[in-house]
Amino acid sequence: MIIILKPKATEQDLGRVVGRVEEAGLKVHLSKGTERTIIGVVGDERKMDIQSLEVLPGVERVMRVLRPFKLASREFKPDNTVVRVSDGVEVGGNQIVVMAGPCAVENEKDLMETALAVKASGAQVLRGGAFKPRTSPYSFQGLGKDGLRLLAKARDLSGLSIVTEVLSPGDIDLVSGFSDILQVGARNMQNFSLLQAIGGARKPVLLKRGMSATVEEWLMAAEYVLAGGNTQVILCERGIRTFETYTRNTMDISSIPLVKQLSHLPVIADPSHSTGVRSLVSALSRAAVAAGSDGLLVEVHPNPEEALSDGAQSLSLDEFSALMRDLGHIARSVGRTTQPSLEKAMRGGDAG
Amino acid sequence: MIIILKPKATEQDLGRVVGRVEEAGLKVHLSKGTERTIIGVVGDERKMDIQSLEVLPGVERVMRVLRPFKLASREFKPDNTVVRVSDGVEVGGNQIVVMAGPCAVENEKDLMETALAVKASGAQVLRGGAFKPRTSPYSFQGLGKDGLRLLAKARDLSGLSIVTEVLSPGDIDLVSGFSDILQVGARNMQNFSLLQAIGGARKPVLLKRGMSATVEEWLMAAEYVLAGGNTQVILCERGIRTFETYTRNTMDISSIPLVKQLSHLPVIADPSHSTGVRSLVSALSRAAVAAGSDGLLVEVHPNPEEALSDGAQSLSLDEFSALMRDLGHIARSVGRTTQPSLEKAMRGGDAG
Amino acid sequence: MIIILKPKATEQDLGRVVGRVEEAGLKVHLSKGTERTIIGVVGDERKMDIQSLEVLPGVERVMRVLRPFKLASREFKPDNTVVRVSDGVEVGGNQIVVMAGPCAVENEKDLMETALAVKASGAQVLRGGAFKPRTSPYSFQGLGKDGLRLLAKARDLSGLSIVTEVLSPGDIDLVSGFSDILQVGARNMQNFSLLQAIGGARKPVLLKRGMSATVEEWLMAAEYVLAGGNTQVILCERGIRTFETYTRNTMDISSIPLVKQLSHLPVIADPSHSTGVRSLVSALSRAAVAAGSDGLLVEVHPNPEEALSDGAQSLSLDEFSALMRDLGHIARSVGRTTQPSLEKAMRGGDAG
Amino acid sequence: MIIILKPKATEQDLGRVVGRVEEAGLKVHLSKGTERTIIGVVGDERKMDIQSLEVLPGVERVMRVLRPFKLASREFKPDNTVVRVSDGVEVGGNQIVVMAGPCAVENEKDLMETALAVKASGAQVLRGGAFKPRTSPYSFQGLGKDGLRLLAKARDLSGLSIVTEVLSPGDIDLVSGFSDILQVGARNMQNFSLLQAIGGARKPVLLKRGMSATVEEWLMAAEYVLAGGNTQVILCERGIRTFETYTRNTMDISSIPLVKQLSHLPVIADPSHSTGVRSLVSALSRAAVAAGSDGLLVEVHPNPEEALSDGAQSLSLDEFSALMRDLGHIARSVGRTTQPSLEKAMRGGDAG
Repeated sequence: MIIILKPKATEQDLGRVVGRVEEAGLKVHLSKGTERTIIGVVGDERKMDIQSLEVLPGVERVMRVLRPFKLASREFKPDNTVVRVSDGVEVGGNQIVVMAGPCAVENEKDLMETALAVKASGAQVLRGGAFKPRTSPYSFQGLGKDGLRLLAKARDLSGLSIVTEVLSPGDIDLVSGFSDILQVGARNMQNFSLLQAIGGARKPVLLKRGMSATVEEWLMAAEYVLAGGNTQVILCERGIRTFETYTRNTMDISSIPLVKQLSHLPVIADPSHSTGVRSLVSALSRAAVAAGSDGLLVEVHPNPEEALSDGAQSLSLDEFSALMRDLGHIARSVGRTTQPSLEKAMRGGDAG
Repeated sequence: MIIILKPKATEQDLGRVVGRVEEAGLKVHLSKGTERTIIGVVGDERKMDIQSLEVLPGVERVMRVLRPFKLASREFKPDNTVVRVSDGVEVGGNQIVVMAGPCAVENEKDLMETALAVKASGAQVLRGGAFKPRTSPYSFQGLGKDGLRLLAKARDLSGLSIVTEVLSPGDIDLVSGFSDILQVGARNMQNFSLLQAIGGARKPVLLKRGMSATVEEWLMAAEYVLAGGNTQVILCERGIRTFETYTRNTMDISSIPLVKQLSHLPVIADPSHSTGVRSLVSALSRAAVAAGSDGLLVEVHPNPEEALSDGAQSLSLDEFSALMRDLGHIARSVGRTTQPSLEKAMRGGDAG
Repeated sequence: MIIILKPKATEQDLGRVVGRVEEAGLKVHLSKGTERTIIGVVGDERKMDIQSLEVLPGVERVMRVLRPFKLASREFKPDNTVVRVSDGVEVGGNQIVVMAGPCAVENEKDLMETALAVKASGAQVLRGGAFKPRTSPYSFQGLGKDGLRLLAKARDLSGLSIVTEVLSPGDIDLVSGFSDILQVGARNMQNFSLLQAIGGARKPVLLKRGMSATVEEWLMAAEYVLAGGNTQVILCERGIRTFETYTRNTMDISSIPLVKQLSHLPVIADPSHSTGVRSLVSALSRAAVAAGSDGLLVEVHPNPEEALSDGAQSLSLDEFSALMRDLGHIARSVGRTTQPSLEKAMRGGDAG
Repeated sequence: MIIILKPKATEQDLGRVVGRVEEAGLKVHLSKGTERTIIGVVGDERKMDIQSLEVLPGVERVMRVLRPFKLASREFKPDNTVVRVSDGVEVGGNQIVVMAGPCAVENEKDLMETALAVKASGAQVLRGGAFKPRTSPYSFQGLGKDGLRLLAKARDLSGLSIVTEVLSPGDIDLVSGFSDILQVGARNMQNFSLLQAIGGARKPVLLKRGMSATVEEWLMAAEYVLAGGNTQVILCERGIRTFETYTRNTMDISSIPLVKQLSHLPVIADPSHSTGVRSLVSALSRAAVAAGSDGLLVEVHPNPEEALSDGAQSLSLDEFSALMRDLGHIARSVGRTTQPSLEKAMRGGDAG
């Protein structure tokens, strides 16, 4: 931490700042320049609050040297975290993991059809919302517990793992009983009560980036979960809000390699919410894998035009199948693999 | 709602769209142009989801005509809502209501001193956080229930009403027992579980605008509370995130007159979080009242440089007292009043 | 300037950084902490480029201590700059200066009517575009030189001073011949060729803030003009781009007191472009003056519904007249004055 | 165009709106609903200005149906535009075109070394700034005409084509004499004087997206050039400003497939300015090609740590060479090719 004094700061001001730092068990290193005095703080600066220093008389600015996250940082844990979702499904290893399914669980027939189809195309996890966060109180809010039961049934039928969203601390136990991964949605990325409660759960977590969150804030949200004792965190880039209006959000493609540098946690991309436009989903999926994404979260629906929620961005089953073939080629071009059976099919196809 | 078909849409496409609209109990009005066919939807379009129409074959774009909020709209309720906080404290009437106090409740001595001082300067409500949403899990998270007890004690001592934040649906009953207004923070503006639960509470609500929320999203958040049956909603502009770095956020001053036009709900401004810079708080407070704000939420601390949280933006007791005198002048210049005893003091001062 | 080395930086890395700083004629002050070494740079850091240091091996981050603007800073010139536009019209003094008129000059009749009316209401400067920057090549681009001639005629008729926009270095001489203030529009705030050319002109400049510019970038644009030798710069806050869609832009009201603290230059507000909504212009005008603005730039049109450009945000002549009366009250409540004849009329009114 | 009247609009209001539309040579189609009357405008709505309709009494909102750009749209020209830069260098065909070189031309030795190296690695165009737009008047502003001469010399030596920036209408002739492509920088994307002048030039144009521009505004800027008669426009995504601070800008990866859908113009990506971070450039380059980019604009420097401008984002010659090999693999995985000699080398490598 660096503390910059104002040109007119007095010796008394300096003394007060130094005292405050030393009270916190840290040391100071003075640098008196011709224009200003600068105080370097030596030790773990995370113990001190920037703002409580900035208000002291004579202080012009306070700047952090260290990143505010610790458990999430690659310095803390140099090796990649691989999140084990279930037998044979691991996120963060060499294999690209694709999670696919409808935005919201709507009915048994569509969900089972989707599960079997995405499994056949090479997905390993089924996504589907039972509790839906909706901007309007008058919109479809999800099937709730009935939706969870349908997801569990689809898991039994298809062998896919399940990821679904949890909205409230009070629902964590319920959702954990039916799902393999607990999803925290973008709007709840800074719902600290929820993050703390999930830190105490023993399930992998899919933590979506908030709509206007910086990468640092996103990693601080992961830090809440890690600090609570749950180390199985998968990050998910789902697009941020920008001025662009032709797309719903803007995928921050650079966040993928950046997170891999800053943190040991795996990161996947959600091309469906990132753009909101069905015809752009495949291009963004390819880009994400080319940039180093560990997987994808894709909306798929047997009849996108009938979907109760987010149909405009859902791929049809055929479009998804075509996307998975493309992804196989991209994955290989960056030295990654996709689901084994898909790999095998591709090799057959290439040879044919 | 207006549905615009693509130039190459077929009769079959048209028929499918019309069918979908009529299924929802609405009527269509066709407009066949030289370039495109346009379908006007007649009836309450809030019953239909834009996205489920946009994915139909042949559809280019769907645009709403009506605002998505209803109970919060001035069309629904032309007269101003006046929220009665307690005996003699009403937000949304002619009198400007000032809520002041520390960011976080820290200890009894400081809180009591602050309460008496802001009361003497003309504030009517005491603010102070007991449960604090913090971006770092390692920062001070508030005193919790002990903080609530101190707030209640300050109310007894000073006669001020109390506003404090609630973070989780599970805490609403607890906080309601100690506070006159339940505050929903910016990070929870789209925590729909919390909004629904607060819709069932019988306490006035202070709903802060989300950090990157549009005015429409903010009013939709209010709609959640209103739809739950709680009509006592006070909106609070607290600044939005922009590219500016010299201030913490950017107060959207135009949101104040805009909300007064779109909605019947009262709106106040938080100049402290809007800027994060103590030396700008007074100028923003004056501007907010000049623009039509029904009140202010201001951070005040007896020793800003000792504050555990947000000291950099807190006014000292003397600065607050000076601000209140300025506000009296501004309020009168736009035909509003401030707290009666303050009015009296100002008249005395003007005469002297 | 502070240079932070990586934890693993070698002595050789350190030596290279120190060498680079000393080559530039500056001195270093080392601070070796337990986690990192920090280098304080002593001397005028504006001579060094941050990026050329950041790429050196072993360097983690480089942070400025000083603001990058110098001539525009209040440290450089503690007293307010007062820009003398013409006899009796000074921007930056105690008097609020209002500049009013149509977005674009359209025809002689309307311009003369507008000029006489805004003069009568208390404006001191007539605004009107002859060269219009338009996002579409198919929109009305202004009357060009004919527009300039009409402005000069309106000046002769009304006694108002003139402000109009210049788009290109090649037009500066032409526009200077007809106008008292050269306006640089928001889209040209970082058109450095234009800024350099205007730095050589001997006319006051109205420098609008760019649509997504930070206050620092805005002051750096002013620095270009000042560095060229033209010290008569008036800054103009005209709203920044945000996610809000109900208004065209978002007035950054805090920029007004902030600029007054950081710089000695006068600053005015443009409530018309800041919002794009006629019914919000008066509220924003009052807010700007309450926050410390030195003046206003307001769009006025005799028939807003007939305007060729930006009619949606123009006040009618009657609305403008009412606004000027309101402004008189606000100005007095913050210890400022408005145009003398208006002051006199107000005193008469108050006495009645 | 759709015009929505207010619920209380009168017959007189309706008549005035209809009259205004018919004056412009367009037809109306009325749709009277239970809540509102909606007017569909039939014909080429680009002739009408939205704002001149929005201010009419009784009008609530006006919405465009057609995109505001025409010459740039794929509807106007369904086939891809292929811009022929020089013999054998075409942008927008099946081959990925890479443009590489230093941010600014600094001296002869470095430029010649860079030219030969990037040529050997498979680049087809040399980039390098002679006129540099800099946010500070005190920063290095480029070598000007001397820089242009060095670029021409590098062209003679290496056989590469040249792209360099033009800042002012007065410099177009000069720059055209030395360069194969005229670059319009991000800060000048809405410098309409410059766009108009370039519309009259007979050189291919590289049009960078503005820092906060929407895709629509970017295509409207292209429309200015096209409307001036210059049809050889290459678009360049270079990242937009967001709240993220770890990267300089945020590459809008979705703009690449989006522009290919909306427009016939070729689009390339600038991964260097998009991120500002050297260690992320390769990942973004791969992502851009995977998303459908027609080429890349990459900063390369023989000694990034010695660069006078933007060294922090420049690749070394070796890093660039490695990137080109990776790109070959990605290009093939999406059915594209890279520079022929590189293709050949890759085939050799694959066989080995």
